[in-house]
Amino acid sequence: MVPEASGDDGRDGVRLSDLLRVEKGFRLEEVGSRSTPGFAGGKAAGRTALRAGTEPFAELQERLFAESRFGGERSVLLVLQGMDTAGKGGIVRHVVGAADPQGVRHTAFKAPTSGERARGFLWRIRRALPEPGEIGVFDRSHYEDVLIARVQGLVPRATWVARFDSINAFEAEVAARGTTIVKVMLHLGRKEQRSRLTRRLGRPDKYWKYSPTDVDARLLWDDYQQAYQDALTRCSTDLAPWYVVPADRKWYARWAVQQLLLEHLQALDPQWPAAAFDVAAERARLAAT
Amino acid sequence: MVPEASGDDGRDGVRLSDLLRVEKGFRLEEVGSRSTPGFAGGKAAGRTALRAGTEPFAELQERLFAESRFGGERSVLLVLQGMDTAGKGGIVRHVVGAADPQGVRHTAFKAPTSGERARGFLWRIRRALPEPGEIGVFDRSHYEDVLIARVQGLVPRATWVARFDSINAFEAEVAARGTTIVKVMLHLGRKEQRSRLTRRLGRPDKYWKYSPTDVDARLLWDDYQQAYQDALTRCSTDLAPWYVVPADRKWYARWAVQQLLLEHLQALDPQWPAAAFDVAAERARLAAT
Repeated sequence: MVPEASGDDGRDGVRLSDLLRVEKGFRLEEVGSRSTPGFAGGKAAGRTALRAGTEPFAELQERLFAESRFGGERSVLLVLQGMDTAGKGGIVRHVVGAADPQGVRHTAFKAPTSGERARGFLWRIRRALPEPGEIGVFDRSHYEDVLIARVQGLVPRATWVARFDSINAFEAEVAARGTTIVKVMLHLGRKEQRSRLTRRLGRPDKYWKYSPTDVDARLLWDDYQQAYQDALTRCSTDLAPWYVVPADRKWYARWAVQQLLLEHLQALDPQWPAAAFDVAAERARLAAT
Repeated sequence: MVPEASGDDGRDGVRLSDLLRVEKGFRLEEVGSRSTPGFAGGKAAGRTALRAGTEPFAELQERLFAESRFGGERSVLLVLQGMDTAGKGGIVRHVVGAADPQGVRHTAFKAPTSGERARGFLWRIRRALPEPGEIGVFDRSHYEDVLIARVQGLVPRATWVARFDSINAFEAEVAARGTTIVKVMLHLGRKEQRSRLTRRLGRPDKYWKYSPTDVDARLLWDDYQQAYQDALTRCSTDLAPWYVVPADRKWYARWAVQQLLLEHLQALDPQWPAAAFDVAAERARLAAT
């Protein structure tokens, strides 16, 4: 799955959105969580490549935002899913964090309140969608309603099964209104998760990120993998494909998500809006003040 | 107004929240927009000092956020006001941008919609207040309702005059619920504004930030300064003081706002939450998985 490097930066020129996309016949268990598809270099090269992507990413985001000030309706939505410690927070800090906070709309979804549950599982999701020009980020999402809800048996089987179709219809609607949806599953290995949780238990400044329920979820690891397998294959559509990013190596996952965002933003190709005024006349008015 | 430097970093040890605070007898016209109170160095030293503040700022923000996950109710609200091109956006990118997007709630207030106006000028402000653990940022705010609304005559005099008391009562209530309010007026000089607007007219990638109404507002410069003078003095309270930051030098304004945030966060002194579980027992459970 890892092609040869074709440049000094460890990249090989393959589009990550082709390489990591969930297609027919996809098997999660065949994805190596320590692999680095599309990147032949190591950690140092990965960090350099991430830094190199920061400026282009920030500029594309600003163009998208500028476009929206003049009637543009396009936006981007990054959906992040993964087991505990998979690195969702790190993606938000190190990848999305390079963009102007003004153009970012971040939502972390926790267990729904009873009021939220009463309104249907997509209600709170709709409210958090990005506005035109924004990059929306979902740290967890409506997919929890076919993951934890299924594995923990929070709803009957018929309920979560029906949600796959609801999700596909919802995402098609969101895409139609001009939102480019980028769904990323950070695929963490079971062993790597244990190391990360163990590290949290060794650092008092990380205790707040640890919960005994993290171990409870580990005991249901295979059930979660099966639930992911189904969600990934049932809901990877042309309008809203899933990408599976191996996540044992944080530097790789960050670079890969940045590339996925860059590729989608480059395809949108947002342009600086033309002047909606007479530039020479404005210069003259300004000079007179 | 600029004391001698006492260290290599250009700082002089004075608290900026003392130095820049609007007190009784304050006169906006006496503040030099090119001055750099509390900082004796130049641009290079200013940038170095800003970089040095990034880590401490990000850590304090994370501690505040962590605290809120365990019942903490404290938050911070940065209110940014200033004439066009005063640098509000740059503060958001270069100062607030150092924090985890997860803990930042940014709102840019535009002209209110008719629906918003119908609900009273504070309605949309309340909805945008930071949640516990968050740093809220207002790019413009309820102060527009005593600035542009007054200068452009959008409401009768009696209406905007009554708003000073409404604002003070509102901010006292917000402070009482645990939000530390840091109100910053970026004080830009009239000449410097002309240079910045002229620069925008020379760069196609900046056209989108320019509007002919910017020149209209310049023609009412003195009216705006008077409106600021009144807002600053009528609404600088113990619970929600105003700070005036000279803004002709971007590097200074950014450093100064970072310092103001740091000083307030340091006073809050948020602590990493203690483990809400038995660390040794969890280690054993984890090792068994």
